[in-house]
Amino acid sequence: MRTTTGWQSTSTSIALERVPIERRELREDDLAVRVDFCGVCHSDLHAIHGLLGKPTDGLVPGHEFTGTVTAVGAAVTSFAVGDAVAVGTVVDSCGVCAMCRVGQENFCLEGPITTYGGTDRVDGTVTKGGYSREYVVRERFAYHLPDGLDPAAAAPLMCAGITMWEPMRAAGIGPGSKVAVAGLGGLGHLGVKLAVALGAEVTVLSRTPDKADDARALGAAGLLVTTDEAQLAQGRGRFDLILDTIPGPHELPPLLSLLALDGTLSVVGFPREVTLQLMNLTAGRKKLTSSGTGGTRGTAEMLAFAAEHGIVADIELLPSARVEEALTRLGEGDVRYRFVLDLADLDQPAA
Amino acid sequence: MRTTTGWQSTSTSIALERVPIERRELREDDLAVRVDFCGVCHSDLHAIHGLLGKPTDGLVPGHEFTGTVTAVGAAVTSFAVGDAVAVGTVVDSCGVCAMCRVGQENFCLEGPITTYGGTDRVDGTVTKGGYSREYVVRERFAYHLPDGLDPAAAAPLMCAGITMWEPMRAAGIGPGSKVAVAGLGGLGHLGVKLAVALGAEVTVLSRTPDKADDARALGAAGLLVTTDEAQLAQGRGRFDLILDTIPGPHELPPLLSLLALDGTLSVVGFPREVTLQLMNLTAGRKKLTSSGTGGTRGTAEMLAFAAEHGIVADIELLPSARVEEALTRLGEGDVRYRFVLDLADLDQPAA
Repeated sequence: MRTTTGWQSTSTSIALERVPIERRELREDDLAVRVDFCGVCHSDLHAIHGLLGKPTDGLVPGHEFTGTVTAVGAAVTSFAVGDAVAVGTVVDSCGVCAMCRVGQENFCLEGPITTYGGTDRVDGTVTKGGYSREYVVRERFAYHLPDGLDPAAAAPLMCAGITMWEPMRAAGIGPGSKVAVAGLGGLGHLGVKLAVALGAEVTVLSRTPDKADDARALGAAGLLVTTDEAQLAQGRGRFDLILDTIPGPHELPPLLSLLALDGTLSVVGFPREVTLQLMNLTAGRKKLTSSGTGGTRGTAEMLAFAAEHGIVADIELLPSARVEEALTRLGEGDVRYRFVLDLADLDQPAA
Repeated sequence: MRTTTGWQSTSTSIALERVPIERRELREDDLAVRVDFCGVCHSDLHAIHGLLGKPTDGLVPGHEFTGTVTAVGAAVTSFAVGDAVAVGTVVDSCGVCAMCRVGQENFCLEGPITTYGGTDRVDGTVTKGGYSREYVVRERFAYHLPDGLDPAAAAPLMCAGITMWEPMRAAGIGPGSKVAVAGLGGLGHLGVKLAVALGAEVTVLSRTPDKADDARALGAAGLLVTTDEAQLAQGRGRFDLILDTIPGPHELPPLLSLLALDGTLSVVGFPREVTLQLMNLTAGRKKLTSSGTGGTRGTAEMLAFAAEHGIVADIELLPSARVEEALTRLGEGDVRYRFVLDLADLDQPAA
């Protein structure tokens, strides 16, 4: 076994403990990655709070990270020691089902192996995430981090970015498209940037007008206040795609009313039960869908696009020892727009 | 006023009464149509039972009919006395909203004027439907019935047919597509015929294997029994589009499980509240949608396609005096596949 250091949850509290973590010895198609930067995703908070149906004891969160290859297995062909890499939310899958065959391993029919809290397909151990100084990952699920992307600010592309990218690609967004982004957090702000770069006219949907300047600074054409009946009425039937990143419970019908004919509401927040009248979809033949993260095909495509357009997240970078502060402020919605942990402090003795 | 004869509901009973009916004098863009054949739609039954939120007293159902032009208004340019015509579920709309401008008057943002139970935009009277010997309709909402289509069997194209056509066109169905049709009634059997003619591989979904031969006779490749866990598992991820025509309450997750990546479940039965876990959509980025009937653009396109491929409904033709029998058997699901009323008996004195 290899050993490293990381941040582990031992209850449903966000007070993580710094602990030694074991990593497997490299299999022939594995890379060892020194984790340099790991984004703090809202689902990390859900996982710590036990809301994802996974054990919280011993949980090491973190599923959007960048780092440096430090060792490679005998059969690895695409990476060498010293390469800059990025890893996202999926680290293994069956590889043979209809979803895996088209590069949508996140939808693997046998269930994707998640970067943390998953069960390794070979040895049955529970995967531990990127809030740690080293990760061991199959070559197939590691990505070359393109030159020119800041490795800290690029880390959130691997979950937040791809979660925004895939529904836009599925909906065929491009020049002339009208896209709305509900919620301007870690996902939403990357949604705005990616949609603008795809050529779409982008509007931020928000319950208050407070973020109008921020929305425009990110490239949005404007902000529509969804609690303002007049603005809702004026926006009726306007959007081809709404990316709904709102993490908490909220009503879908006001968002559906803003969709154009054959428009799509893509709900990418924490999956949950929804109740709606089908007639909210009927008038305009609107589509409700959901998705989360992405597969190897989309992730590679998104990284190339991000590099071409210079897109990374707007982040607040903290030493990993301040992870509790990051989680606390994330829970309060107090972040612009993504916390990223710098894991270098784990090379030093604990304070 | 013009007067004609028709079948009217006076309560929520399906025992309709033969009564005189007033029709407006022709406006300059109106046609008078002698109604020859009118289909009996499941929503007629809902309307009679008061389930559509419209008054049932004085209700004259019927919104898929064919007939013959008997008079035209001064400004009518596309029709002449003697022309064969077809009329569907919408007889007027605002004409200027985003939906009307693209020929989707069924989704008119001011609300389409339905063929019966609607409120005329000019005189405010309640529209009365095609269970009658004459109808007066704006030229814009009448369609030339193509040569070669049997006028009795073509009547159901105007509601059931277009309701199947539009979601298939919206989903881009064509050669190589895999389409499933849940429910093999008035809508479903036309869905099979139209999908087959579009070049799709078509499967009927049914709770029992009883209709396997019927499905194949209509051109389907086969039938999948949705109560058979093994067949459900085998069909997992197979279909690009499922047209769900089931009229009663039923579970959507088993149908969603049969969708391929980015597949669409189009629910076209009686709109109602649905509850589902978003995760039923997430895995595979599946889309839930709904629609009903169609607009002028789709209807004209569908009629041309039906004529080209010789597609009409399989019907049971009854004299209109037997309307109660038709409604009773429809309520019991005892029809292959659509009742059509022959209104010629209204020219004779009541029995």
